[in-house]
Amino acid sequence: MTQAPLTRADCEAMDRADPLAGKRGDFALPEGVIYLDGNSLGALPRRVVGRMQAAVAEEWGNGLIRSWNDADWYLAPQRTGAAIARLIGADADEVIACDSTSVNLFKVLMGALRQQQGRGTVLSENGNFPTDVYVSQRVCDQAGRTLVTVDPAEVPAAIARIGADLAVVHLTQVNYKTGRLYDMAAITRAAHDVGALVVWDLCHSAGTVPVDLNGCAADFAVGCGYKYLNGGPGAPAFVYVARRHVADFWQPISGWHGHARPFAFGHDYAPDPGIARMLVGTASQLGLIALEEALKVFEDVDMQALRRKGQALGDLFIRLVEQELGGHGFGLASPRDAAERGSQVSLTHPEGYAIMQAVIARGAIGDFRAPDILRFGFAGLYIGHADIWDAVAILREVMDGRLWDTPEFRAKKAVT
Amino acid sequence: MTQAPLTRADCEAMDRADPLAGKRGDFALPEGVIYLDGNSLGALPRRVVGRMQAAVAEEWGNGLIRSWNDADWYLAPQRTGAAIARLIGADADEVIACDSTSVNLFKVLMGALRQQQGRGTVLSENGNFPTDVYVSQRVCDQAGRTLVTVDPAEVPAAIARIGADLAVVHLTQVNYKTGRLYDMAAITRAAHDVGALVVWDLCHSAGTVPVDLNGCAADFAVGCGYKYLNGGPGAPAFVYVARRHVADFWQPISGWHGHARPFAFGHDYAPDPGIARMLVGTASQLGLIALEEALKVFEDVDMQALRRKGQALGDLFIRLVEQELGGHGFGLASPRDAAERGSQVSLTHPEGYAIMQAVIARGAIGDFRAPDILRFGFAGLYIGHADIWDAVAILREVMDGRLWDTPEFRAKKAVT
Repeated sequence: MTQAPLTRADCEAMDRADPLAGKRGDFALPEGVIYLDGNSLGALPRRVVGRMQAAVAEEWGNGLIRSWNDADWYLAPQRTGAAIARLIGADADEVIACDSTSVNLFKVLMGALRQQQGRGTVLSENGNFPTDVYVSQRVCDQAGRTLVTVDPAEVPAAIARIGADLAVVHLTQVNYKTGRLYDMAAITRAAHDVGALVVWDLCHSAGTVPVDLNGCAADFAVGCGYKYLNGGPGAPAFVYVARRHVADFWQPISGWHGHARPFAFGHDYAPDPGIARMLVGTASQLGLIALEEALKVFEDVDMQALRRKGQALGDLFIRLVEQELGGHGFGLASPRDAAERGSQVSLTHPEGYAIMQAVIARGAIGDFRAPDILRFGFAGLYIGHADIWDAVAILREVMDGRLWDTPEFRAKKAVT
Repeated sequence: MTQAPLTRADCEAMDRADPLAGKRGDFALPEGVIYLDGNSLGALPRRVVGRMQAAVAEEWGNGLIRSWNDADWYLAPQRTGAAIARLIGADADEVIACDSTSVNLFKVLMGALRQQQGRGTVLSENGNFPTDVYVSQRVCDQAGRTLVTVDPAEVPAAIARIGADLAVVHLTQVNYKTGRLYDMAAITRAAHDVGALVVWDLCHSAGTVPVDLNGCAADFAVGCGYKYLNGGPGAPAFVYVARRHVADFWQPISGWHGHARPFAFGHDYAPDPGIARMLVGTASQLGLIALEEALKVFEDVDMQALRRKGQALGDLFIRLVEQELGGHGFGLASPRDAAERGSQVSLTHPEGYAIMQAVIARGAIGDFRAPDILRFGFAGLYIGHADIWDAVAILREVMDGRLWDTPEFRAKKAVT
């Protein structure tokens, strides 16, 4: 069966039928830009602009130290964690916002390994996001364990093979390069079957894929606030600890904000009985205020509808690339089946770096990952179907005209 | 020799002769407030207001992911570290801004102990800031060492006594409760004489006491950005590693931003050759932008002049408390000699908690630390001599009228 070629008018019709189309108005997007990099830095929610002005001028400037109480700064990590919990299938008191993803990963890996005495192996994947592997490597050194990494498809077999020696499985739910999505329920179950714990990195899923941590009986998770959660550059990250683990969880970095009574200023460390034990130092309050405000955009969002839209945008992108760009040498690095990928589609091309620079220069912003990956992220809250058409049109213009083949685009420094 | 009682006019004359008086105009202080809590949260530099608006609306909103390059976000930790280095006697490439003080403390303590194999003891003081002790306790557990804490006056004797078993001395230069100042040069020399390394916490000295890390041959230091550096609530902290230690320094939390080539996305961790190895995750960019902008206030400040002013304000406060408040039961918890204290003076009073609440309610903001400490901080960039007079006048009014003795002030929740 041959499909009729799609037109821009078809895409406009899809936008008119999109129940989430109105959310775009919640974001301050620049004119003349199609932003397909929300998987790297989410767009600015309009409401954050005024909130930050008030936080700086009123809460800091006029309230000064009193704002810790009067503006409820103290409980911002808990409140923000609770807002994220709703998006990832956790209870409000199982998630807290703090530190960076990497620091939170260090905490949960060190703590999880304490619970797994006598088990010598941590399992991750080849091609996991670098910081996940880097942190795991050094955690294993410190905890006297061995890190084993295998190809994604080999994870289930590796879990079974390592068996009783498997302490922790540590994976990123959606791969940063390919967008490939793990079956969280199946992997978690397989790990539990051999007595292992699972640490999930949700950086590329929180806020776009309706994660169900408790439904999957997950143990631990971390994720960042600056991608699909739109919390701003370097926004605080979050950490999830399943209720059954909290009371005994051992935190390696025993800072005062994780103390049961931080303002008693006692001599000895005694962890908070709840999720606040994951805190370390004073919260990064300005960043936290931006993230908390940004999360309000999600209050009326049906995550299942957002997931369907992200999948539809990805499917549309693949179809248009095939329709418009056949013969230009692109490969598909992401799963074709939308059920098996997050909200991004990655193409491969040997000249991918220069091509992406040329595409960005014309206003469609994706990014590049070595050696040959062009990443396009589809944040359904502010990207529409006609945007996908326009982005592919730019890509076609760049390819048809060989506009990428200039010294400038070949040499330009990559953005993250 | 009896001194004539001081008057408010005398204090106003001191302000007219103050070479730093003009700096107050750099800060947005609320009307009707005398802010003596800059040692807890520094005041808002006016220039930060516009800078943050631009960072949110322009750099994040319009620049989006491109701002990592176009707005030079990537090197903000290094630039901010270099600006702090000037204030603490370090070279620009020995300091970097990142994470919280507690997280940085964890890094330097874990790394310092790696360098000190065969030495079993970490020495700190009773009454060090809680997070310092808490982090040290758990670091010692992880590194198989013993934490010993002694009274501040016993530190030199303890260094000599522990001798060849002493791995690390870990002290806060200015005590958070009493304002007592260690002789950094003498302590560091004594520690080095027995082969120990020293970790200094500069939270209550950076930006008010002209620290001379390299002049003292210090090894490691950490400090926060939100007190005398005025970087805003929960501003990023900083970490100093002396040049001679950097190349071999082992960092326990091996995140991607500490990697030599973070955007090569390689599989194995390889630390940056320089101070950037102290980084972990993505920088808390909004907080970092506020801190970097706030530090510009220091560009024309002579730190020796700021130190003299901080001492003069403290001397004035003590003199006025004795002149105006004799018989009200206050004790002096800080050293009387200005050379032995940082920029704060702490009083004791059995009803200190309620008294401080009553004083705050009348517009003079200090804070309370259990069990009986009233803290008053003197940030010389925005506090003048007449402010000290007015604060003491409020304190006198509260005491003479027993205005603190109400259920409201006895019950109110303390601020940090």
